[in-house]
Amino acid sequence: MAIDEKAFSSLTSILNQFTVMPDNQISALRTLVSKASYKKHEYFTKVGDEQTHIGFVLDGLFRLFYVDLKGKEYTKNFMMQHHFVAPYNSVLSGKQSNLYIQALKDSEVLLINYAEGLKLADSHSCWQILLRKITESAYLQKEKRESDLLFYDAQTRYTNFINEFPDLRRHIKQQHLATFLGMSPETLSRIKKSKIDKSQ
Amino acid sequence: MAIDEKAFSSLTSILNQFTVMPDNQISALRTLVSKASYKKHEYFTKVGDEQTHIGFVLDGLFRLFYVDLKGKEYTKNFMMQHHFVAPYNSVLSGKQSNLYIQALKDSEVLLINYAEGLKLADSHSCWQILLRKITESAYLQKEKRESDLLFYDAQTRYTNFINEFPDLRRHIKQQHLATFLGMSPETLSRIKKSKIDKSQ
Repeated sequence: MAIDEKAFSSLTSILNQFTVMPDNQISALRTLVSKASYKKHEYFTKVGDEQTHIGFVLDGLFRLFYVDLKGKEYTKNFMMQHHFVAPYNSVLSGKQSNLYIQALKDSEVLLINYAEGLKLADSHSCWQILLRKITESAYLQKEKRESDLLFYDAQTRYTNFINEFPDLRRHIKQQHLATFLGMSPETLSRIKKSKIDKSQ
Repeated sequence: MAIDEKAFSSLTSILNQFTVMPDNQISALRTLVSKASYKKHEYFTKVGDEQTHIGFVLDGLFRLFYVDLKGKEYTKNFMMQHHFVAPYNSVLSGKQSNLYIQALKDSEVLLINYAEGLKLADSHSCWQILLRKITESAYLQKEKRESDLLFYDAQTRYTNFINEFPDLRRHIKQQHLATFLGMSPETLSRIKKSKIDKSQ
């Protein structure tokens, strides 16, 4: 699908927040980018896929989740507008994806071929700086998530989530939110009920 | 403290596993590296420090931990020989460290000044590639830890830890291991007792 100026500039404005990118490099990137649409419930990635593209969410919402041997789902993350979406383990290592990524509503994504992107990255050090800074940012987010899971009790994790993402919960099923927050659906239900009771 | 050839080459051999580094860049790095010793229980970093150096563990073991307002400790990680040790949040963002890093036994570390390292990194793209790959590796470890915390029950997390780090447990207090594995000391104690009972 052809990409329009607005879609591409929403990507480049995010990149420029990490490091200032020369115009000729941005033009070179444009040749590697395509656009794709995902209907609600459609998969961006399935377990076993050898993922070759990183997505940039123009509009929409995705859920990243694992499934255990008994079929139980564990939500790893939600990726929303203007965030990158990919099974990084698969993209970085070349291994098959060990997780699913599914659209929670109709979504539009810019797709960047990672191998082609790495070739471009070899041509100018700005790309290495950019990739390093994006990875550092992702690392710090993961570190925060780790400390949240260790540090906070279930009640606090739920409150923090609602404060940070007030618009997200109407798109997210309760059992998906529960596993994302590292608690059982029963615990989440009890916490929500107690908050309602307190506010009455 | 002066650094000897053996100590420096144990660092460079790890760096070369990520990407092949030109000799002149390795020589430039050497001027930024110093050596430091930490006695058992001594701190590499305390909460509130503005950490300027990344450590590379030549020998020894460190524990990274948070402390909550009630004084309860949450173990974030253990860093052993030939691994990097730092409060990355502080080093990358320039903010004060929000965690403690303490030697669990007498340890020796190479110290790399991060700001000086970044200046060197501007001079040759090999450093940007190296930093990106190190950060990617750290990211994938964090992603694995996240999925372990979400995915596995307490029993499995303990078994995985013992299989992965059989030599580590004799240096680690039980309450530190419990918080690292995201469980209460009572749960860890129950799991260990049940394993002993089963093996008899």
